[in-house]
Amino acid sequence: MWHINETSFNPESQHHKETIFTIGNGYLCTRGAFEEGYPDEHRATFVHGVFDDTPIVFTELANAPDWLSLQIILNGERFSLDQGTLEKFERSLDMRSGVLTRNVRWRSPTGLGVTVRFERFISLANEHLLYLRCQITPEFDGMVEIHTALTNYSDNEGLAHWRLLEQGLSNVDNQVAYLHARTRVTQIQLALSMRVKTSPRARIAFWNASNAPTFDLKFTARHGKMIAVDKIVGVATSRDVGDPLALAIEHAANAPAWDKALEAQIQAWAEEWKRSDVVIEGDNEAQLAVRFSLFQLLIAAPRHDNRVNIGAKTLSGFGYRGHSFWDTEIFMLPFFIYSAPHIARNLLDYRYQRLPAAREKARANGFDGAQFPWESADTGTEVTPTWVPHFSDRTKLIRIWTGDIEIHISADIAYAAHLYWKVTCDDLWFAEKGAELILDTAKFWAARAEWNAEANYFEFNDVIGPDEYHDHVDNNFFTNYMACWNLKTALDILDWLKRTSPSKADELIQRLDLTPERLAKWTDIISRIFFSIGLNGLIEQFEGYFQRRDIDLAALEPRNISAQALFGIEGCNETQILKQPDVLMLQYLLHDEFSDEQVHLNYTYYTPRTDHTYGSSLGPSIQAIMACKVGKPDDAYEHFIRAGRADLRDVRGNAQDGIHGASAGGTWQAVVFGFAGLRLNENDWEIHPRLPSHWKRVKFNFYQRGELQTVDIQK
Amino acid sequence: MWHINETSFNPESQHHKETIFTIGNGYLCTRGAFEEGYPDEHRATFVHGVFDDTPIVFTELANAPDWLSLQIILNGERFSLDQGTLEKFERSLDMRSGVLTRNVRWRSPTGLGVTVRFERFISLANEHLLYLRCQITPEFDGMVEIHTALTNYSDNEGLAHWRLLEQGLSNVDNQVAYLHARTRVTQIQLALSMRVKTSPRARIAFWNASNAPTFDLKFTARHGKMIAVDKIVGVATSRDVGDPLALAIEHAANAPAWDKALEAQIQAWAEEWKRSDVVIEGDNEAQLAVRFSLFQLLIAAPRHDNRVNIGAKTLSGFGYRGHSFWDTEIFMLPFFIYSAPHIARNLLDYRYQRLPAAREKARANGFDGAQFPWESADTGTEVTPTWVPHFSDRTKLIRIWTGDIEIHISADIAYAAHLYWKVTCDDLWFAEKGAELILDTAKFWAARAEWNAEANYFEFNDVIGPDEYHDHVDNNFFTNYMACWNLKTALDILDWLKRTSPSKADELIQRLDLTPERLAKWTDIISRIFFSIGLNGLIEQFEGYFQRRDIDLAALEPRNISAQALFGIEGCNETQILKQPDVLMLQYLLHDEFSDEQVHLNYTYYTPRTDHTYGSSLGPSIQAIMACKVGKPDDAYEHFIRAGRADLRDVRGNAQDGIHGASAGGTWQAVVFGFAGLRLNENDWEIHPRLPSHWKRVKFNFYQRGELQTVDIQK
Repeated sequence: MWHINETSFNPESQHHKETIFTIGNGYLCTRGAFEEGYPDEHRATFVHGVFDDTPIVFTELANAPDWLSLQIILNGERFSLDQGTLEKFERSLDMRSGVLTRNVRWRSPTGLGVTVRFERFISLANEHLLYLRCQITPEFDGMVEIHTALTNYSDNEGLAHWRLLEQGLSNVDNQVAYLHARTRVTQIQLALSMRVKTSPRARIAFWNASNAPTFDLKFTARHGKMIAVDKIVGVATSRDVGDPLALAIEHAANAPAWDKALEAQIQAWAEEWKRSDVVIEGDNEAQLAVRFSLFQLLIAAPRHDNRVNIGAKTLSGFGYRGHSFWDTEIFMLPFFIYSAPHIARNLLDYRYQRLPAAREKARANGFDGAQFPWESADTGTEVTPTWVPHFSDRTKLIRIWTGDIEIHISADIAYAAHLYWKVTCDDLWFAEKGAELILDTAKFWAARAEWNAEANYFEFNDVIGPDEYHDHVDNNFFTNYMACWNLKTALDILDWLKRTSPSKADELIQRLDLTPERLAKWTDIISRIFFSIGLNGLIEQFEGYFQRRDIDLAALEPRNISAQALFGIEGCNETQILKQPDVLMLQYLLHDEFSDEQVHLNYTYYTPRTDHTYGSSLGPSIQAIMACKVGKPDDAYEHFIRAGRADLRDVRGNAQDGIHGASAGGTWQAVVFGFAGLRLNENDWEIHPRLPSHWKRVKFNFYQRGELQTVDIQK
Repeated sequence: MWHINETSFNPESQHHKETIFTIGNGYLCTRGAFEEGYPDEHRATFVHGVFDDTPIVFTELANAPDWLSLQIILNGERFSLDQGTLEKFERSLDMRSGVLTRNVRWRSPTGLGVTVRFERFISLANEHLLYLRCQITPEFDGMVEIHTALTNYSDNEGLAHWRLLEQGLSNVDNQVAYLHARTRVTQIQLALSMRVKTSPRARIAFWNASNAPTFDLKFTARHGKMIAVDKIVGVATSRDVGDPLALAIEHAANAPAWDKALEAQIQAWAEEWKRSDVVIEGDNEAQLAVRFSLFQLLIAAPRHDNRVNIGAKTLSGFGYRGHSFWDTEIFMLPFFIYSAPHIARNLLDYRYQRLPAAREKARANGFDGAQFPWESADTGTEVTPTWVPHFSDRTKLIRIWTGDIEIHISADIAYAAHLYWKVTCDDLWFAEKGAELILDTAKFWAARAEWNAEANYFEFNDVIGPDEYHDHVDNNFFTNYMACWNLKTALDILDWLKRTSPSKADELIQRLDLTPERLAKWTDIISRIFFSIGLNGLIEQFEGYFQRRDIDLAALEPRNISAQALFGIEGCNETQILKQPDVLMLQYLLHDEFSDEQVHLNYTYYTPRTDHTYGSSLGPSIQAIMACKVGKPDDAYEHFIRAGRADLRDVRGNAQDGIHGASAGGTWQAVVFGFAGLRLNENDWEIHPRLPSHWKRVKFNFYQRGELQTVDIQK
């Protein structure tokens, strides 16, 4: 259960498969487009942090110059799957080694037969190296010609980001060709270099054609005799080093040959899987789905860079333009905190470094402290689009409000920093960075809280909670509770700091202006914040939610569109239908603060009111965990497998835009905290297994206080 | 006075000069970018009618794949003006032949000296052929290498429009390479082909590099011995023919050599100038400015295509995305009507063919008849942007209203159709197409008119007149008067049709539903339309204009920003300051309907209230004509030369976006109808010369009823 396989080529699902067959190394990822190209392909390579300006959504990860390009010409006929006859097609991603393989048997329009095998991997052992191997077995005598290039005309769905700086053959090593380009606005440089190794020897020419430095390789073809080309590519950007071109060339010049590089690749991935793998016995689909989720998270996770975050669609598609949401902190980060704390720390460092931008956002809105953007990219300013074109009426625009009022993200980030600390006990990092994240977001919450003098409580009005079917709501329980948690935790943290790092405490008190008056106000807000809870103890998702129209969602089945599409944006807002389980999400995050009865009561109420199938892709994994909590592992499985299929089966029809990163992270959480029921205590841990009836075994590792622990549950 | 010369290269004015040195043939135009490229260039070729979709402004002329690309490599060093030392630079556009020449003496970073001469022209004799010559004289012995390519990664300021279809060497003629591409959304195919001729013979290789088919030419360099390359390019699109690739290849394969093609070019341009030239003696700047204006109009004017119009920025820049405005009918078209009626007819045919779209726009707004779009492109639907991003506040957008309420364009088009008829007496065209344009726009006006029962008159409320400093105004005099003229003229035309083409009259009466009741309503509107005229006979630009704040514009001199920038959009709206002379414009267009006293009175009032320097670029030429009318030729000259300098001297700082087509057309009108005072009578013409004091002679030709007339005014 280590392979994602495809056994036929269907042009209709081309873009979905490009997403599925994305490979990468946490520095960059490349979608599974064909080396030789295909009409209307969404060919893309995304390099972490390489953003450029773009209309409406402000900034996007710039689709990098292409390293894959490889054309095969058989006696003058160009190999392309949209021509001739495809007699065999197999594609396979080996997740254990990160190697993508494609085997094709093809007959040209004039009848020349050929078998072609492509293999590629993006080195995890050396993040600046990319490998491509092409093996051609002609069924004719004649000539095989290969053009393999670095090309500089990648675009983001029609938006061009690159300007050529230089190209040519290296002076250092004249077997190395290079392409050096720069983004138009942000002026980030990216250099690619390549060299080739062929068998048998080819007549090699170098074409320094504009924006497409190319090696032209000519082979005498003999029926049945294989021709092989290894293309080794170096990559570097000005984010890494002052002279990325020199670095890229040096890498290609000195790169190990295929076999040795592959050995290092297998070794590096073995290390990853040793820490990260989850074994599920008795359910092949679940096994594969979980490994696929982890593979996708691991290839998108920065190992050597703490200035970047993971986008909602990882590095695998144009969706959400590479922007990061709470999807990172709440859905993906737990996997890294438990399995790869060094990566989790990089991701949290990214937020820490963007505190100045978060302070500026708070200030611009008239608040103290740090207000993190709903969508974040390179600078940490808010990059949620404000207006998007109306889908049909040219005189209208649609206002997107999440960047203005979906404010819970600031508490989510504080929560993640705290969780990292609790699991790793990394006091040094926490004192230096984590504490400040929590204290400064607390400042924001205190400033944002509104005093209702009539009712005698503090409240948060005009917000959007996790359930985005309802916007401009007052006193969203999730938001209020997380704000309150943030304030409480900030006070605790300050006490801890005073005890353990008094000088750091003093510095923060000074710098963040944590006066006794301010802290007193925090205490006041904590004690007098409004929570809307029904008489029977049922939590009201937001003030007035219970008065909204109650719809029997089950009666609308079967349906193949979202409740929002069914009722309209405004119409859906007026019902109790949820995009995702807002209250249950909170009860999951702060599970110690709710009794089993409370969980059960709310689970029973909110579950039938949630649009599990076409609502948020973030919901199903959390729903699975909560179903486990209330003792319904088989119900849980239904939600869990929905999350696991999000991309592999494209159940939402949008996998072409990239991997659902939150769903991938949630899948891991559902196994670990749902089915296995892992709970950490101060010095040890416990499990509360609630496996689906057909599962035989679950086994995984995690780090607690830096020590690797193993959980192995066998029925 | 036939040459636009540049004697040094200033990178700061790079984009301005690219516009100035645009050449073309009415089928396509190419900006004056360097063959070898330059950082941040706005390299572009625009082909008439080749539009593709784009955000916000709906559609734009797609910057075509590049035909110019030519790299020179001297002993391995690439010739580029941003490197090494530029020892001499001269550029010259010969407007008599349309040939652009550049002479450069350059020294490479390592000290290799070279003289390079580039010449290029776009054939007027055969619109599918483009010629480029490069002559290199090395001052060293060694190697000169040239890469010349057709490249497929042109973009529109970051927007990519092209997808590659095919590229390679032609089977028909293996000296011809080709590139075949297609726009992404509109699926328009464009094919380029090329062959090269060298002296001395070169070692030639063909590089079929991805998206950049390239000829690699290697020469042995001898000190002082010239190396010459002629690049002959064929071009065709799927708008011309079913198989544009075959057509493009055929053209390059069979194209005449440079000398013969140049001879044909000179001949073809001689024909153009015989009809079109304006001679001014005593004022070199004016002479050059007028010829430049005419050259720019002539290279943008479709000779063999009646499905396209000329954009506000001709085919010379990205400004206004190739969209057409009233600039064509009111400013540019008179030159063609008088000097090249066959071109004028093509441009009017474009509008005629778009009547269905104009009817649909009227219908969507709840009106009868034909309402033409304020901005028009390929389909004739409204392509004015509705909302554009606010320049500073990300949460705001700016609503552009011209597409909704600047409705005078429908009358402007009717006016132009009528003028064409009056000057050419082309009864056949007019009966077949022109009459329908006038009748169907009249229908629109009658539907759009509002009956004010209280005041007992018809009015047009909530419009924008030509003076765009004032929007959402009621009863704009220009609009009301032109609407009334349109209705009156429609009734006259229908009478004429009944007399001269009764069957056509019947058909139109039937098809356009011109019932007696409808025509009676037209008469009613004509007799009871509201015109706001002051007690003293002064026309009020719109209802309430005289109540707006009266500003002494002269007291604000010197200023280097527009009055709108000075007072703000809203602030300016509240003053009497005009962007262009709205009332005077009307008195120019319908000069027979206003007495000299009326003209004088309004000229005296409105002239000091007009932002001549930084208001509309459309204003100065009209202001010049009206100054002539009131006997102030030297005042007129000031306005005239402002129009003449719009692009050559970049007086508004935006010539980089393309030629001000309206200003170019207005410049011709100012000479002919202002300084020369030409007036056509039924069967002859008269002139009322009012030359600027320093002018010695004005001479030009025009067609009346198909006969070439010559005006020669000598002091």
